[in-house]
Amino acid sequence: MTGDLVISLDAMGGDHAPDIVIEGASIARERTPHLKFLIFGDETKIVPLITRFPILKGCCEVRHTDKVISADEKPSQALRRGRDSSMGQSIKAVKDGEANAAVLAGNTGAQMALAKFILRTMPGIDRPALASLLPTSRGESVMLDLGANVECDENNLVQFAIMGAAFARTVLGVAKPTVAILNVGVEELKGSDSIKEADRMLREANIPMDYKGFTEGHGLGRGEVDVVVTDGFTGNIALKTAEGTAKMIASLLKKSLLESLMSKIGAFFASGSLQALKNHLDPNNHNGAVFMGLNGLIIKSHGGATAGGFASAIGAAIDMAQNDLAGKITNDLKNFHNDGNDNENDNKDENVVEMTIKEKQ
Amino acid sequence: MTGDLVISLDAMGGDHAPDIVIEGASIARERTPHLKFLIFGDETKIVPLITRFPILKGCCEVRHTDKVISADEKPSQALRRGRDSSMGQSIKAVKDGEANAAVLAGNTGAQMALAKFILRTMPGIDRPALASLLPTSRGESVMLDLGANVECDENNLVQFAIMGAAFARTVLGVAKPTVAILNVGVEELKGSDSIKEADRMLREANIPMDYKGFTEGHGLGRGEVDVVVTDGFTGNIALKTAEGTAKMIASLLKKSLLESLMSKIGAFFASGSLQALKNHLDPNNHNGAVFMGLNGLIIKSHGGATAGGFASAIGAAIDMAQNDLAGKITNDLKNFHNDGNDNENDNKDENVVEMTIKEKQ
Repeated sequence: MTGDLVISLDAMGGDHAPDIVIEGASIARERTPHLKFLIFGDETKIVPLITRFPILKGCCEVRHTDKVISADEKPSQALRRGRDSSMGQSIKAVKDGEANAAVLAGNTGAQMALAKFILRTMPGIDRPALASLLPTSRGESVMLDLGANVECDENNLVQFAIMGAAFARTVLGVAKPTVAILNVGVEELKGSDSIKEADRMLREANIPMDYKGFTEGHGLGRGEVDVVVTDGFTGNIALKTAEGTAKMIASLLKKSLLESLMSKIGAFFASGSLQALKNHLDPNNHNGAVFMGLNGLIIKSHGGATAGGFASAIGAAIDMAQNDLAGKITNDLKNFHNDGNDNENDNKDENVVEMTIKEKQ
Repeated sequence: MTGDLVISLDAMGGDHAPDIVIEGASIARERTPHLKFLIFGDETKIVPLITRFPILKGCCEVRHTDKVISADEKPSQALRRGRDSSMGQSIKAVKDGEANAAVLAGNTGAQMALAKFILRTMPGIDRPALASLLPTSRGESVMLDLGANVECDENNLVQFAIMGAAFARTVLGVAKPTVAILNVGVEELKGSDSIKEADRMLREANIPMDYKGFTEGHGLGRGEVDVVVTDGFTGNIALKTAEGTAKMIASLLKKSLLESLMSKIGAFFASGSLQALKNHLDPNNHNGAVFMGLNGLIIKSHGGATAGGFASAIGAAIDMAQNDLAGKITNDLKNFHNDGNDNENDNKDENVVEMTIKEKQ
């Protein structure tokens, strides 16, 4: 499979697997020729599905495994028995250089644990972070961490900022992205000690970003900065609150527009514009969060994504693989440390499993 | 002023003081006859404003003070020199029994510090929390803490749950409100230690609420529960993210509806329905957060509220005063402690100032 871009897929992960995984692959293949797939899972289910999509003919290699990580499996269980699973094997394909990236829709905690165990973190990174694009009123912003780490210290936050800036340069194409830490106020005296210390460190760091200090919840929707840095607890709540609010408004809007003849007429005339707005806000069109800071590209799809959403996640994987996201992060980290920042990386092998389990439980 | 409901107002607080404070009072007075106001601030500015609104004639007592807490004053400064300010005096009027509640639009950190110092926390409450109503797709929910405490332990969260349930019974009129803790997942193994411990304590507590466990960010917009409990950092970010998302969508929607002739026609026909939706989502119509757990009713208005928004905050104050919110909280706390929960209240006087300063800096 050399020469082409190869994406490994866990065919068994997500709410509608394996159907949407295979259909999503077919949509991605239409958009990106020369794409190849390495597909892990139950071949008795996968092979018949592939035959339904002629475009997938000749570009898929299916590797059979009976083992599947279930949605409610704990990260510690996944680590013990999941390395031969479809999820574990699709990650291992990246480690072994067989695939440029893996796209997975299954159990997030298990993904994080297995990916960290199999790929290890990059030098200079203590903990991986989950990053994704959010729709804003001026386009898209990157936010991280979205839930990989419930608690984060100042070093984690600084590393997230460096990784997020590399993400924005790679995926959004901004040469010097604006970066801010999410806080309860923009004054320097607000927030926790680790936030204040990370703020101080970033003001002094010499990395290709335009560090802006703090941003508040209001700033997310406005797209005040290109990169929003936060701990995984707050990031997860903020992301889901934004998605939930958008859904609430869409449902209220629909209800409002159906309540009278006048409003129904209005909805008919405005339907084209409303559809375009709906597309901009649909999480499926921003699907594809990446576990940043690992020695390999692992993309997480929403578990409930549609086939189109899964194809977006594959698209994100292609973007990041082609634009050398990992290389940019490595360079920025090198510059940061060469600048005399003595932030030690204690990524010792024996700690990896324990840390991973502790984080997610 | 006995017999009537008296609200004390800091005329000098907020972005558009004293204008919107006085205009807001006039709107509230139209809605609620027999309302009286005790107004603190610069009488040379206040008195001419009052004369513009005939409905305010005879129901306002103005008490002059030159001292004003500025928007950027630190809580510690406010405590040192703010007790004679318009903010400090309007809070003291509640302490002295001259007013049933105070409504303030100024510097939140200073409000919190002064209110806690002047009124002290209720027996059984370690820290006050800021609570407010949020619009949801099924009506409104209460969320607390919205930013009074950056870090919270399990006892704080349990106390917030008890206070939030009393708020929902008083303001939303739900006999047995559903309550949940905001978390990154609904499984019991997720989240920080203090969240897990608060969850365990609430499962065992015997208070008039229907405790549901954890809720996620998605659940806020859906109105999954009547009361959402969280620490002040997360609550502040979630609230502002929700408000920011709603604003972003409104601005995108407006842009979409103006982009073509078809959509403009649509917008014209749907304008009535769109306006109703806008009203439901407008933060001014949900204005009025309350500092819960103090020996007295202090209502915080958005600093940028309109006169209508300020009137909503006065309306919330009236509701809570008339429905004896404080009495309900006291009762519930008594039952909780009688049930053998040995959660000690260490509300020692000498700690109050120091804690307050530390929390907000």
